[in-house]
Amino acid sequence: MDRRSFLKTSAVGGAAAAASTLAAPAYAQGKRTLTMVTSWPRGFAVLDDAASYLEQYVAAVSDGELTIDKKAPGELVGAFEVFDAVSSGQADMYHSADYYFIGQHPGYAYFTAVPFGGTAQEVTNWYYQDGGQELHDELGSIFNLKGLMAGNSGSQSGGWFRKEIASAADFNGLKFRMPGLGGKVLSKLGASVQNIPGGELYQALSSGALDGLEWVGPMADERAGFQEVAKIYYTAGFHEPGSALSSSVNLDVWNDLSEKHKQILNVASMATTFFQLSETLANNGAALARLQAQGVKTLQFSDDVWDAFGAASKEVMDENMNDELFAKIRTSFEASLAKSASWINKSDGFYVAQRVRVLGGE
Amino acid sequence: MDRRSFLKTSAVGGAAAAASTLAAPAYAQGKRTLTMVTSWPRGFAVLDDAASYLEQYVAAVSDGELTIDKKAPGELVGAFEVFDAVSSGQADMYHSADYYFIGQHPGYAYFTAVPFGGTAQEVTNWYYQDGGQELHDELGSIFNLKGLMAGNSGSQSGGWFRKEIASAADFNGLKFRMPGLGGKVLSKLGASVQNIPGGELYQALSSGALDGLEWVGPMADERAGFQEVAKIYYTAGFHEPGSALSSSVNLDVWNDLSEKHKQILNVASMATTFFQLSETLANNGAALARLQAQGVKTLQFSDDVWDAFGAASKEVMDENMNDELFAKIRTSFEASLAKSASWINKSDGFYVAQRVRVLGGE
Repeated sequence: MDRRSFLKTSAVGGAAAAASTLAAPAYAQGKRTLTMVTSWPRGFAVLDDAASYLEQYVAAVSDGELTIDKKAPGELVGAFEVFDAVSSGQADMYHSADYYFIGQHPGYAYFTAVPFGGTAQEVTNWYYQDGGQELHDELGSIFNLKGLMAGNSGSQSGGWFRKEIASAADFNGLKFRMPGLGGKVLSKLGASVQNIPGGELYQALSSGALDGLEWVGPMADERAGFQEVAKIYYTAGFHEPGSALSSSVNLDVWNDLSEKHKQILNVASMATTFFQLSETLANNGAALARLQAQGVKTLQFSDDVWDAFGAASKEVMDENMNDELFAKIRTSFEASLAKSASWINKSDGFYVAQRVRVLGGE
Repeated sequence: MDRRSFLKTSAVGGAAAAASTLAAPAYAQGKRTLTMVTSWPRGFAVLDDAASYLEQYVAAVSDGELTIDKKAPGELVGAFEVFDAVSSGQADMYHSADYYFIGQHPGYAYFTAVPFGGTAQEVTNWYYQDGGQELHDELGSIFNLKGLMAGNSGSQSGGWFRKEIASAADFNGLKFRMPGLGGKVLSKLGASVQNIPGGELYQALSSGALDGLEWVGPMADERAGFQEVAKIYYTAGFHEPGSALSSSVNLDVWNDLSEKHKQILNVASMATTFFQLSETLANNGAALARLQAQGVKTLQFSDDVWDAFGAASKEVMDENMNDELFAKIRTSFEASLAKSASWINKSDGFYVAQRVRVLGGE
């Protein structure tokens, strides 16, 4: 007997049956639970935080009328099986990073992050104001998915290394974890690139299966413990300047939801990205200081290395342009990015540079 | 007869009375409308947008169970009277910029923006992660207010001028609109600083009552039409690097709300800031290009002028330190800002500089 049928015949089920003979309030009839499979072990900083806030907000604003039943990898499906599970209807929705699914379609890279792409704010601008959401839905319709964005890790760090990267040639032969199109860029530089779920990374780095990896940023990386097995940390990276997370929904499930429940998911998703990003960015600085106190050396890649990243990134992006939908998404994204940056660099960017110059500080 | 009593005795009122004899669903009994007075004329870009999104999200996620009745200046009280109206219970909540109320308490500056303060992200980090919300409530408790943040204009532009600012001495005698502590900084430089509601600024600049002004940024400024009467536009400013908007609630009204309605206001406020900021920042670049096409010359203040802003800002901030709560808020804010910036400058900041260097662009 599974848990569901047990409940039906238990005392709980009996009480529910008795209650139904009373005049049920209208909202009780609309109660709904959505099963959400995720790519994150429970308690994984930043990523599972985002999934948890979404779960909390949905329940809070609906007073439990709509709830999310969050599943960690292995509880229903594996970390990278969530896309197919939701596409097929095995689960109602997922919380993951869409660039894990560039095998399904390379356009999914844009719904997490692409090399030399947008910061969290620029990605958000594109998604909500310049057609990103609509393209997420257009891409999703191929796989029976409604696109939702819920979470952003901010600008991801360049990653953990055992040796300093003196030139781009040092990537040659390096066993490195980097998902998405960023990983394909490092392959161009000769790296042996692997994609491994977050929950398995510490072991892979410890055992020497990996020479290095990028995960998220100081807050998440410290929690994962990478400082115990590598001591070189590059703070800025080319590969994920503002990585969005997705909470996409099976399209049949979505279409069956009431307008109110759709709005709850939309609004709670926005609040999730907003709150979780602030948590991440408020805590990365202090986490970085703690990592440094544990002997981690922080560095930036040299201009030469950045130039090599740039040249290889252009190659990778161009190679996908024979796919019409990829080309459409890229064109939309780059037009939005140029528009956003043309103001932000002249306002926020110029201001922060002056603040550092006038007041000092890092 | 006022509108409310008219409705009670009208056909609409009669229909409502008839409906109440049917079995009302539980949620109908919990219906609530909050009167929200704002400082923004209807349709004012960025500011009224934020107020409108809050209104929409609250209604949407509650399916009309909780609604906001938004009032423009003059419909119930004037633009700058909203704080006292909510404090006294004349209205349930306001949507405004809290630095309009530094006369009530100088600490309110921090809940919009302060000179050389945080970007939108840094302000958000402080508010939600590092004690800002709690301090908003502590300050609000003096005035019978529950603090909520709902909206952010991003980094505000340096402002509109009829003549270029060659040195800080050019502010001497200039009739300029700038609210908050930023205005007090310009006073130190000899400017005749005035605070005038947004809806009256175009007329003041046209008539020569003002020599110049800062309002928000390209999207809002273009809509206000300032380009018709001034042609010099400084894109970055020292005074409001990320201006938050507030939707604070009368504390008795707040305490009387159900937990569900409190959560709806909290979550909808976060979604409002998130969505409205993305709208503003996605559109500022294109608005700036249109302003330039209309003959507006865009400039940045020189390092010497920024140094003068810096010195005068420190004076203004220090003058308020005899107020214990101001000092507490400032200390909290500056600690959070240093923490946020120590990571953001090394990640987003470094990345964007490399992106511009590698790919070109503005």
